[in-house]
Amino acid sequence: MEASTTLSRIGLAGLAVMGQNLALNIAEKSFPISVYNRTASKVDETIQRAHSEGPFPLTGHYNPREFILSIKRPRSVIILVKAGGPVDQTIAALSEHMESGDCIIDGGNEWYQNTERRIQEVTQKGLLYLGMGVSGGEEGARHGPSLMPGGSFEAYSNIKDILEKVAAQVEDGPCVTYIGEGGAGNFVKMVHNGIEYGDMQLISEAYDVLKNVGGLSNAELGEIFAEWNKGELESFLIEITSDIFRVKDDFGEGDLVDNILDKTGMKGTGKWTVQQAAELSVAAPTIAASLDCRYLSGLKEERESAASILQETGLRDEVGSVKSGIDKKRLIDDVRQALYASKICSYAQGMNLLRAKSEEKGWNLNLGELARIWKGGCIIRAVFLDRIKKAYHRNPALANLVVDPEFAREMVQRQAAWRRVVGLAISAGISTPGMCASLVYFDTYRRARLSANLIQAQRDLFGAHTYERIDRPGSFHTEWTKLARKSDAGVGAFS
Amino acid sequence: MEASTTLSRIGLAGLAVMGQNLALNIAEKSFPISVYNRTASKVDETIQRAHSEGPFPLTGHYNPREFILSIKRPRSVIILVKAGGPVDQTIAALSEHMESGDCIIDGGNEWYQNTERRIQEVTQKGLLYLGMGVSGGEEGARHGPSLMPGGSFEAYSNIKDILEKVAAQVEDGPCVTYIGEGGAGNFVKMVHNGIEYGDMQLISEAYDVLKNVGGLSNAELGEIFAEWNKGELESFLIEITSDIFRVKDDFGEGDLVDNILDKTGMKGTGKWTVQQAAELSVAAPTIAASLDCRYLSGLKEERESAASILQETGLRDEVGSVKSGIDKKRLIDDVRQALYASKICSYAQGMNLLRAKSEEKGWNLNLGELARIWKGGCIIRAVFLDRIKKAYHRNPALANLVVDPEFAREMVQRQAAWRRVVGLAISAGISTPGMCASLVYFDTYRRARLSANLIQAQRDLFGAHTYERIDRPGSFHTEWTKLARKSDAGVGAFS
Repeated sequence: MEASTTLSRIGLAGLAVMGQNLALNIAEKSFPISVYNRTASKVDETIQRAHSEGPFPLTGHYNPREFILSIKRPRSVIILVKAGGPVDQTIAALSEHMESGDCIIDGGNEWYQNTERRIQEVTQKGLLYLGMGVSGGEEGARHGPSLMPGGSFEAYSNIKDILEKVAAQVEDGPCVTYIGEGGAGNFVKMVHNGIEYGDMQLISEAYDVLKNVGGLSNAELGEIFAEWNKGELESFLIEITSDIFRVKDDFGEGDLVDNILDKTGMKGTGKWTVQQAAELSVAAPTIAASLDCRYLSGLKEERESAASILQETGLRDEVGSVKSGIDKKRLIDDVRQALYASKICSYAQGMNLLRAKSEEKGWNLNLGELARIWKGGCIIRAVFLDRIKKAYHRNPALANLVVDPEFAREMVQRQAAWRRVVGLAISAGISTPGMCASLVYFDTYRRARLSANLIQAQRDLFGAHTYERIDRPGSFHTEWTKLARKSDAGVGAFS
Repeated sequence: MEASTTLSRIGLAGLAVMGQNLALNIAEKSFPISVYNRTASKVDETIQRAHSEGPFPLTGHYNPREFILSIKRPRSVIILVKAGGPVDQTIAALSEHMESGDCIIDGGNEWYQNTERRIQEVTQKGLLYLGMGVSGGEEGARHGPSLMPGGSFEAYSNIKDILEKVAAQVEDGPCVTYIGEGGAGNFVKMVHNGIEYGDMQLISEAYDVLKNVGGLSNAELGEIFAEWNKGELESFLIEITSDIFRVKDDFGEGDLVDNILDKTGMKGTGKWTVQQAAELSVAAPTIAASLDCRYLSGLKEERESAASILQETGLRDEVGSVKSGIDKKRLIDDVRQALYASKICSYAQGMNLLRAKSEEKGWNLNLGELARIWKGGCIIRAVFLDRIKKAYHRNPALANLVVDPEFAREMVQRQAAWRRVVGLAISAGISTPGMCASLVYFDTYRRARLSANLIQAQRDLFGAHTYERIDRPGSFHTEWTKLARKSDAGVGAFS
């Protein structure tokens, strides 16, 4: 690594794998970059990789001041450290050496309100700020992630050319756009992760039904997912699922997937998504179901104990009794349709959550554009997102994806298969939580008349909450109990 | 009303209907009470009611100082004003005149953290504090509510005799107990309300299926709910539902329930319950489903539009096709069993949420005792709560209600009917969100092996999150894609 006297175009601090990969990606696109990490060995490692994978224009720095001064003004500094406290500490260490007009870009999975607080704080020092969601994992960071920058538009403009080169490229452009002000970029990334939870859950349910009701082998599953990846379900997650079924177990004869413990880990973003949905009064049951399944998966010992207690108490093996008489080919086709319809509902929930927050915060989010930048780079990338983009381009005020004319037609075509799969799973005791939640969502949303009238009557009876009527305006209160008992008395008097 | 020179035993500020009723209840039990309200007319109204419904030992006061000085030390002052700001304002106005050892008791539906903040604040002035959940609506406040006081045990001891007389009485005692420290009383009341949301939703689904699939009339529904109220479902909410179906519409010929708008209102406690469940990694899908239905019910115009768009797109009237061939009697019996089993799962969720919070906060909540104090006075009062009490008395460490030997037997007995109802609703396009959520919860919890192994494989593939194995300890990471593609190559080489 030779010493460089010219200034770098951009800086990046925090050289864990994600940071290293994003720095190398930027350098590879010919933008000279300075990198820094508190632990010097990480700096050396990155310099080494820039040499061996490149050579790329990357310089390593071992103290904050030297690092900052090596960057051309106005300086743009990406930080990729753990969300929360470490971000604040890094900002404190770096901003000391930064000057008015310089910008800090947090690329972590940060809670959007933390970003909004930091924007306030650094603005007092004349600094700009971006909270930028980065999706695509380590591979994406290195070769083209989906980027969701929100905050200062000026700061975004300063590095727009870099971000557009570094991001994943799809046929209608790079997978990056300016998201909106404040914490918009983090919020959109959070919902992206919530949708990702939903996708993974739905795929695991398709696997569950095909394996445990359909009796399919891993080899068959690998083929089916590969086949599905050629159609409407084509996506990164379907593709990797197909791969997973092909991996043999190093420790023995079988397939590796069968020997993995069924306890799922999680990070904060899924939880936040569910909490925000409640905060905004938006139904997001498919995403919530995927979270619930992760919680319940964690209770492995309790589940084993419940299984044995309930079996002792007379629980039948429902799966076995349903299995016989299954038409495999039809089941596979039904599950494909159920998965697709369930997925549409899950995305509808995520999109409506984004719109609700956008209205609350005045972010002016462009939902079609968000679908577009998710088409490449990120974990939920899928052909299907192009259809969502088009739906919002046709009608930016679309109330719900399921009423877009094209999606509506698809939902209706798939509903029979969808109901068969969910019904079958319920009979078999598998109960497909995400598919169920999506179907329930669809059925509730598409009904002009719900049974909520009864709930309003109950609330008025015990809490005098009043109710509205279907045939005239106004709020009404009724002395239900008195009238009900009187009508009994009335009947008595006549009889 | 004659002037009294002797001091009152207790005070109550905030004389909306709930406050008036609770004050009259206390006075009726022969505890002399002082009342105060900022608007003088409310004070007059309460004095008037104490006279006409009594006479009861109640004195009205028109300024905070005189009010506080009329109470015997150590003073206990209940406040019943709107949660949030009004509580802070009332505390400020009253505490000015209070002395060390006096206590403020907030009887509103307050967010538990607000109570914990206020405890800190008033402690600095030497005052004690209780956050006391009060359930039972206006009727309960007047004639016997369920009371959930949390905070200072000393303050609780000062008014224990009053609370025990004022609370609803059931065969095993008054419906009040000291809940725990800090905001425990408010938290327990919040979860009570979440459970109440679930109960109401499940009942509305029973109504939905019986009416729209079974074709039952309101008269039949009124009878069936009355009948159910004699068995395992016996509860306040089932009883009032029966009454609701008997009320004729004043504006026309039909029944009132049919003319109520299907848009459901809500307050904050249900939302908080769902957010806390996510915070604590506890699955509470039935309660969440009841919230989602309230949100979706609010979108009446969107639902009407969705119904027409999807019908134009070819949506079949599933209900009609399912209806024919229904055995009414069996359906009614199935729905009763589905409702009961779903209810058990909903309570299991609420109880586990309470336990998780209790562990986090060190509240040491007694779940059996909570079930006991909900047996009378409150909206969810039910015979069934005695069974929950006993389950926790049998085993205070019970992991989940559904594995209690008695409940386990009941769940197993009811599961066939339960699956039939949920499956039927799904075929009919009704989809019973709460019953579905409960069944999914049951099926996920009772399975020793879930499909979460696939999700762990996905997470390891794209994020290097590692996984555990079923057959040996440790964390593992696999180069999935490389191995999957290699095995393809391998197959190629052999073929």
